[in-house]
Amino acid sequence: MAKEEVKLFGTWSSPFSLRVTWALKLKGVEYEFIEEDLSNKSSLLLQYNSVHKKIPVLVHNGKPISESSVILEYIDETWKGHNIFPVDDPHERASARFWAKFVDDKLLPSLWNVFVTQGKEQEEASLVALENLRNIEKELEGKKYFGGEMIGFVDIILGCIANMADILDEITGLKTVEKDKLPLLSAWIENFSSAPIIKDSWPSGDRLVTKYRLYRTMFAPPKSS
Amino acid sequence: MAKEEVKLFGTWSSPFSLRVTWALKLKGVEYEFIEEDLSNKSSLLLQYNSVHKKIPVLVHNGKPISESSVILEYIDETWKGHNIFPVDDPHERASARFWAKFVDDKLLPSLWNVFVTQGKEQEEASLVALENLRNIEKELEGKKYFGGEMIGFVDIILGCIANMADILDEITGLKTVEKDKLPLLSAWIENFSSAPIIKDSWPSGDRLVTKYRLYRTMFAPPKSS
Repeated sequence: MAKEEVKLFGTWSSPFSLRVTWALKLKGVEYEFIEEDLSNKSSLLLQYNSVHKKIPVLVHNGKPISESSVILEYIDETWKGHNIFPVDDPHERASARFWAKFVDDKLLPSLWNVFVTQGKEQEEASLVALENLRNIEKELEGKKYFGGEMIGFVDIILGCIANMADILDEITGLKTVEKDKLPLLSAWIENFSSAPIIKDSWPSGDRLVTKYRLYRTMFAPPKSS
Repeated sequence: MAKEEVKLFGTWSSPFSLRVTWALKLKGVEYEFIEEDLSNKSSLLLQYNSVHKKIPVLVHNGKPISESSVILEYIDETWKGHNIFPVDDPHERASARFWAKFVDDKLLPSLWNVFVTQGKEQEEASLVALENLRNIEKELEGKKYFGGEMIGFVDIILGCIANMADILDEITGLKTVEKDKLPLLSAWIENFSSAPIIKDSWPSGDRLVTKYRLYRTMFAPPKSS
């Protein structure tokens, strides 16, 4: 069989690329990472994801797949090894898809809202974010990971907050995941962050702080007094 | 084996319930439909979908599943018969998931924007919607359905527009899917609407017009001159 070709178009700082990186590493798939400059996207990226023109795009033997959640499903169906989805139980798979969708549609946008607001607006955004975090925390009862004993779909989808929460907190001076309010999620962050493949893939914290400090200034500039 | 219990919590007019109805009928699964009053939701619905408190919810042998796209995946994995997803090709499955996500995240919201705006704003919204419709139309090249010869995931997800386009057009006086601009999509609407299981499941057009005329008055009231 000819050697297969796997390419990932992403950026060093994108939490969505990182999901795909983790999934490929968990499966032990060799791949080439192609760093995109989002201010000057490559013609290949524009061709491979002509609809959204966004990273990440996985290209497997010349065929592109876009949208990180869709890519993760593809990776799990295509390569054996670490199971990203539970194998035997359609209801557990449905539950993982439900929570992953919740993360993308509700939770992450609500955390972003905290980051790009100030004052009263930020207080309200924080309450919404906390409610969302509490909702998903219940899924960790009695489990090390959302996937049980193994890192699964929801862990990978939510994974970015395991370091991004600290990055954003450093910039806003808030605390996203307080141990006393969200004990299971705090423990999960510890577990997830210290898993070997995850630990070794984090982008540089310093570079992230610099990048997100700029976002904060753009979206929620300090008010002059 | 004990008889299995399948319940669908939905409303007669919801395009999202209708997706689940179609999938169950395509599979030949017997089920009980429970009509919800969204202004006074049942305690069972609030318990089964405590996160979003929304229909549709499928309850299979006591276990609830929410989010129509997640429910469709569950149905396809749980019951044999008509294949909603292509069986053999992970890349085709990824493609179906990508386009379904495009419908939910981009296309349907853009059509709704046309419906709830007026004047200049509506003209701009129409251009965005047309661009989205053109994007997905390309997927129909050489095919009867998005699923090929059979109704598949994208057909079910997009299916509501096969009658809703006419309903909304009647109210706004616009034309969502023009034959000369979107010939493949026009042909698909004909094919999809006349497929037996689909044809027999449409809600009453008159009742839909009454309902959506009310929405239009709420969201885009006629301007007094």
